[in-house]
Amino acid sequence: MSEYPSIVLEQAVNQMASLPGVGRRTALRLVLHMLRRTDEEVEAFAGAFLRLKKEVIYCRECHNISDTEICPICSSPRRDHSTICVVENVQDVMSIENTGQYNGVYHVLGGIISPMEGIGPKDIEIDSLIERVAKGSVDEIILALPTTMEGDTTNFYIYRRIQNLQTQNPNGNSEIKISQIARGVAVGNQLEYTDEITLGRSIVNRTEFKG
Amino acid sequence: MSEYPSIVLEQAVNQMASLPGVGRRTALRLVLHMLRRTDEEVEAFAGAFLRLKKEVIYCRECHNISDTEICPICSSPRRDHSTICVVENVQDVMSIENTGQYNGVYHVLGGIISPMEGIGPKDIEIDSLIERVAKGSVDEIILALPTTMEGDTTNFYIYRRIQNLQTQNPNGNSEIKISQIARGVAVGNQLEYTDEITLGRSIVNRTEFKG
Repeated sequence: MSEYPSIVLEQAVNQMASLPGVGRRTALRLVLHMLRRTDEEVEAFAGAFLRLKKEVIYCRECHNISDTEICPICSSPRRDHSTICVVENVQDVMSIENTGQYNGVYHVLGGIISPMEGIGPKDIEIDSLIERVAKGSVDEIILALPTTMEGDTTNFYIYRRIQNLQTQNPNGNSEIKISQIARGVAVGNQLEYTDEITLGRSIVNRTEFKG
Repeated sequence: MSEYPSIVLEQAVNQMASLPGVGRRTALRLVLHMLRRTDEEVEAFAGAFLRLKKEVIYCRECHNISDTEICPICSSPRRDHSTICVVENVQDVMSIENTGQYNGVYHVLGGIISPMEGIGPKDIEIDSLIERVAKGSVDEIILALPTTMEGDTTNFYIYRRIQNLQTQNPNGNSEIKISQIARGVAVGNQLEYTDEITLGRSIVNRTEFKG
C-alpha cells in the first residue's frame, strides 16, 4: 500500500510538490487545506493556471508578460521610448517599476548567458534587442542584469553587439550610450558586512559628494 | 496600472498566494515557474486538484481520506479491528502508519474540541466513534490526539462518552480499555532542553526499566 490513503490525494500531492521549494510534507498540508475549500474555490484555483497558460502572451516589443500584443509600458506615450532597460526576467521589471525611479521602456531577455547551464546568446532575446536598437530611435541602453559572472558576460556580449551595429551603420543614429546599474554598498548596510569586491569597487567607482 | 503586467498573471498569483504560508513574492516565483511548463504539464497540475475535489471520499468507517467507500485499512483482514486509534486528522494516520508500530484501525475526528475556535463535539466525528464502539466488538480505544489543552479536553470528552455508553449497556461487551499515547521526553532529546511540564510528567509516569 502506498504511503497515501488515496491515489487522487497522492497525485495532488505530487503536483504540489513539483513546485520549486515545496517539500512533500508541505505539499500534503497544502493539498489537505485545498480539500477543505468549496468546489467553486478549487475550480477558481485550477482555472487560474489554465487561463494563465492559455491567455498570457509576451509583448512583441519588450517580451514582458502581457495581456495584449504590445504591453501597457511599451504602448504608453508617457514613457521615454529612447531609453531601454535590459533585464533578465519579468520579476526584474516589476522590481524596477516599484522603485518609481525609471520612466523608460524595458527589454526582457528571459534569461542570461550561462555556458554552465548551456544557455547561449541565441537562447535569449538578444537578437530582438539588437533589432530594436537598429531601428535607430534608441539613445541609451541601461544594462540591469544580475551582478554575477553570467550577468557580466551577458553585459559584455550585448555591448559588443551594439558596437558592431554602430560600426556597420556609421550613418545611423548618433552614438548610443550604454550604461549599467551602479554597483556598491547597499543602502543601510554596514561596511564591515559588505564583501571585499563590492567595497573595493565602491571606492574605485566613487561618486562626487553633493553636500 | 496594477503592480502586475498582466491580469491573468495577477489572478494566478492571487490563487497561489491564497495557499497558507505562501507569500506574494513566492507566489509570483511559483507562477512564473509554472509558465515555463508545457500545456500538458499545466493541465496535469490543475487537473489533479479538480480530480481530488471531485473523486476523493471519506471512509464510511474511520473517515480517513479514501478512494473507496471503505478504506484499505478498514477493509484489511490483517488489521486488528478490535483496537481503534483516535486521531485528529489524515496526516496523523500517515504518521502512525509510517512508524510501523500499529496494526489496529483508526478513527479520524477531523478536528479537536476547541471552544476558542468554536469547534464543539458535534462538529467533529465523535458521535460516529461512539456508534462504532456501541456495536460491541471494540476492546481498546487509543487516544492519539495532540498533547495540548484542546487535545486533553477532547480526550476527556471521549472518555466520558464511552463510560456513559458502558453504564447504559451493562450487558454489552466487556469493559473497553481506554489508553492514551505516552507523553515524555522525546527520543534523542537532552533533558536540559525539555520543558518542565514534560520532564515532570516523565518522572511521575516513569516506566519499569527492562535491562
